[in-house]
Amino acid sequence: MNQPRILEVRTRILKDNDRIARDLRRQFVQTGTFVVSLVSSPGAGKTTLLQKTLTELSSRYRVAALVGDLATENDAKRLAESGVPVRQIVTGTVCHLEAAMIAEALKGWDLRALDILFIENVGNLVCPSSYDLGEHLRFVLLSTTEGEDKPLKYPTIFNTADVAVLTKTDLADAVGFDYAEAERSVQRVRPGMKIIATSSRNPDGLREYLGFLENRFQEFRCSVNGSSEK
Amino acid sequence: MNQPRILEVRTRILKDNDRIARDLRRQFVQTGTFVVSLVSSPGAGKTTLLQKTLTELSSRYRVAALVGDLATENDAKRLAESGVPVRQIVTGTVCHLEAAMIAEALKGWDLRALDILFIENVGNLVCPSSYDLGEHLRFVLLSTTEGEDKPLKYPTIFNTADVAVLTKTDLADAVGFDYAEAERSVQRVRPGMKIIATSSRNPDGLREYLGFLENRFQEFRCSVNGSSEK
Repeated sequence: MNQPRILEVRTRILKDNDRIARDLRRQFVQTGTFVVSLVSSPGAGKTTLLQKTLTELSSRYRVAALVGDLATENDAKRLAESGVPVRQIVTGTVCHLEAAMIAEALKGWDLRALDILFIENVGNLVCPSSYDLGEHLRFVLLSTTEGEDKPLKYPTIFNTADVAVLTKTDLADAVGFDYAEAERSVQRVRPGMKIIATSSRNPDGLREYLGFLENRFQEFRCSVNGSSEK
Repeated sequence: MNQPRILEVRTRILKDNDRIARDLRRQFVQTGTFVVSLVSSPGAGKTTLLQKTLTELSSRYRVAALVGDLATENDAKRLAESGVPVRQIVTGTVCHLEAAMIAEALKGWDLRALDILFIENVGNLVCPSSYDLGEHLRFVLLSTTEGEDKPLKYPTIFNTADVAVLTKTDLADAVGFDYAEAERSVQRVRPGMKIIATSSRNPDGLREYLGFLENRFQEFRCSVNGSSEK
């Protein structure tokens, strides 16, 4: 009965978000800042992966992070241990980040001083899928302990992400994780999607992931420099 | 800018939900059906726990289940292996179940033929917290692989649930799970909340949980019979 009006309001929120996200993306290109976001269910390992990523990359690049949570600044504190600038976005009861929250959190930051900005979304496999944050690359994390069927049950988030990152592969044997079945689940929902296996506990467990990230950053920089030279 | 109108629409949806949930709860009391819901993040083990619960209880009670998911009927198929009646609610893009979905899914079911009805919510630690489903008991599941801090980061869902169920305790050592820290997290958010440790892999791992469930069911039946005898 109230459906049309609710839909209208929702559509307007999404339109506003898309406009702000577009502005953010334009700004990131101007400042040469590559922006990467991470989405997953709670406890899939976003903060641990990001902590290692910041530590690994901070010697070679100027990196920073924004982290969204309903409550607490725990994640920002954990990430700040890497020594890079981190800001927490506390969303209250909102189950996702929105472009306007990113714009607000970036106020006063000199983006020209940043090579790569990471955005850790609220732990949720549903809500974040509708909100473009202006990022250039979106990782969806999937942990071995969650089971192989998550892509089939949460198809939208897999469709809005660019790459799937499989986390906690060190626990794969303990939980009887079936790689082939997980691969089939991802491919059924999103044919051709790249999947990168990781383990934050294994010293070598992030090699492919970090290599991929650096390649994408270099490609971004080339495309930005190429377009500014024209 | 649009905030007041959005808030107004949201408030109306919640009011409608509460009214329907109240009607459902009244109906469940009339038919003597004890209703238990399960909420958690994706992959915390709701379906596995429910599968074991239905199998265990079906020899002594008339049990059934409703299961919510964005897409697929995988969970309903898994649960139907227990031999009890199961219905799937496919929510599309909606990240939670609502009382109206429960009312719709129950159409044509004779509730008098059911002792205990289980409702498995969509995997989400945020959205389900605002929606009363008319249940008598709400379990929030928390798996050892998600880490100890989930109650602090998703306080609302822990505040709307009655009991916390810790799942996958068989993996506690492998992931270095700290029971005392998890207990502190729960108690900080919800002082006095009961926590029941479970393992669906250990033959004895559901004993406390099943005992608790049966006690609560008996209490419900006594209170229902007591009030009908007056």
